[in-house]
Amino acid sequence: MKVLHTVKEVVDWRNTNVDRKTQTSGFVPTMGCLHEGHMSLIRESKKENDFTIASIFVNPSQFAPTEDLDKYPRTLQNDLNLLESSGVDMCFVPGADEMYPQGIPLRVEEQRGPFVTVLGVSEQLEGRTRPNFFRGVATVVTKLLNVVLPTHAYFGQKDYQQYTVLQMMAKELFMNTELKMMPIVRDSGGLALSSRNRYLCEDSREISKNIYRGLKAAVSKLHKQDGAKMERSVLLDTVQEIWAPFVASGDFSVDYLSIADASTLQELDQVPNSINVVISCAVYVKDRANGSTVVRLIDNILA
Amino acid sequence: MKVLHTVKEVVDWRNTNVDRKTQTSGFVPTMGCLHEGHMSLIRESKKENDFTIASIFVNPSQFAPTEDLDKYPRTLQNDLNLLESSGVDMCFVPGADEMYPQGIPLRVEEQRGPFVTVLGVSEQLEGRTRPNFFRGVATVVTKLLNVVLPTHAYFGQKDYQQYTVLQMMAKELFMNTELKMMPIVRDSGGLALSSRNRYLCEDSREISKNIYRGLKAAVSKLHKQDGAKMERSVLLDTVQEIWAPFVASGDFSVDYLSIADASTLQELDQVPNSINVVISCAVYVKDRANGSTVVRLIDNILA
Repeated sequence: MKVLHTVKEVVDWRNTNVDRKTQTSGFVPTMGCLHEGHMSLIRESKKENDFTIASIFVNPSQFAPTEDLDKYPRTLQNDLNLLESSGVDMCFVPGADEMYPQGIPLRVEEQRGPFVTVLGVSEQLEGRTRPNFFRGVATVVTKLLNVVLPTHAYFGQKDYQQYTVLQMMAKELFMNTELKMMPIVRDSGGLALSSRNRYLCEDSREISKNIYRGLKAAVSKLHKQDGAKMERSVLLDTVQEIWAPFVASGDFSVDYLSIADASTLQELDQVPNSINVVISCAVYVKDRANGSTVVRLIDNILA
Repeated sequence: MKVLHTVKEVVDWRNTNVDRKTQTSGFVPTMGCLHEGHMSLIRESKKENDFTIASIFVNPSQFAPTEDLDKYPRTLQNDLNLLESSGVDMCFVPGADEMYPQGIPLRVEEQRGPFVTVLGVSEQLEGRTRPNFFRGVATVVTKLLNVVLPTHAYFGQKDYQQYTVLQMMAKELFMNTELKMMPIVRDSGGLALSSRNRYLCEDSREISKNIYRGLKAAVSKLHKQDGAKMERSVLLDTVQEIWAPFVASGDFSVDYLSIADASTLQELDQVPNSINVVISCAVYVKDRANGSTVVRLIDNILA
């Protein structure tokens, strides 16, 4: 596996190796700290394309000054080993200066250079607590797609809003890459895999499985009902009934619980039981082993 | 010359006709109403590339609700004739719905979808009176470059700030197109060619030549001085001395007169006499034949 660090090296590599007229290339952008969720994207790309390319870049512009950029877990050598043994052809590992030639201060007011925003799907849910998060994501993915110029790029459903933002961006900016979303990978108890799970002790990870249990209960209620639509409040109650003990015990603090149209991410008052509904949430989980550790976990189900 | 109206047609056309590995393609995006300025870009592209592609699209997102979108001159058949007789291979003439699938209301608060902003060089000069102008330009050029995927794209120096914005965008988003800037084309009296000149009577066009005369006087003063730097005020006075009679007569109303670093577009207090200085302006010219017609003209010199 080739490991490249500069834009120029990657452009040269693809110009030399990939003939875009006759060959496909799949791209999996990551922030490293790889787990089975990432590897499922790599495997899908390998299956569908002539070349598979990954990137590892912890993107500063999607972190707010108050967030965990410095503490974000970095396990580069292990990640590269995993990618290599999965048959990845090339991995791009740029530094921040390479991706942001004018530098990238975390304070938005000090930033210079081009940024991509996707209006209408970036402001709600994750965007409410993290107002510049999707601007950071859209910008870095634009840069990476331009550098790698893959025919396909793979994203996990766990970050469903991210996929929605990027899909709208790629389609409406007419980017030359088709985006694909792959299902959430969960542990045996249903907890969605996340690089941040490692911050939780076993007890708290066990408790965190109830996040998914709650969402699943709502979806099964929705699918069981007879009428064409269901009251939003019925579904919210169904989730919250399962979460209530953990909220009461101080394990969970709910940031949001959303029942929205899966395309527009607009909240639904009346929920159709057929298709195109996404039930999603973000929950702060307090670690039982170390009460000062609070991890924000997200999850969702496409109903 | 092929005339195409949809993104899909253009992508198919380039996939069929242009082999990006071995052939170059030059792209000249325009808003139509073509004049010698545009044609100089076409000729340069013809000279340098295997294929030359143009586009004609009056981009709504760069107009404010108060501006002249509806009145912007449209001369499509004449434009297509000019392009065809210049040997252009393909011209892309999309509708607004094609470029903005979710629609493009002029009120920014109502807009949805992806937009590109270039922080640091968009806010001053043209951006001061037109706060979303460069966001509109950067967004539409991103879309067009992704659709056409040319190896080169050509822009006129008349819109120097636009070129600066687009150049920063293309470089730092790592777009796969090299941008080139071509000199301003002027009429015999020095007036920079512009689609909007046609709104002025002969008298007022004659008077408008003093815009360039003023800028030229400043540049020649700058080049004649001995020291390493010159006071900004000396240069401003030089321009304004030439403009003063026309301001007094009500022909000119100066929007801005700028002496800035040509890369950052930051205003200079002390002006180096060597390189990388741009003297630029926007002047409202009142038409002598029809006093209710006021045309905003821009011009600049790279000193």
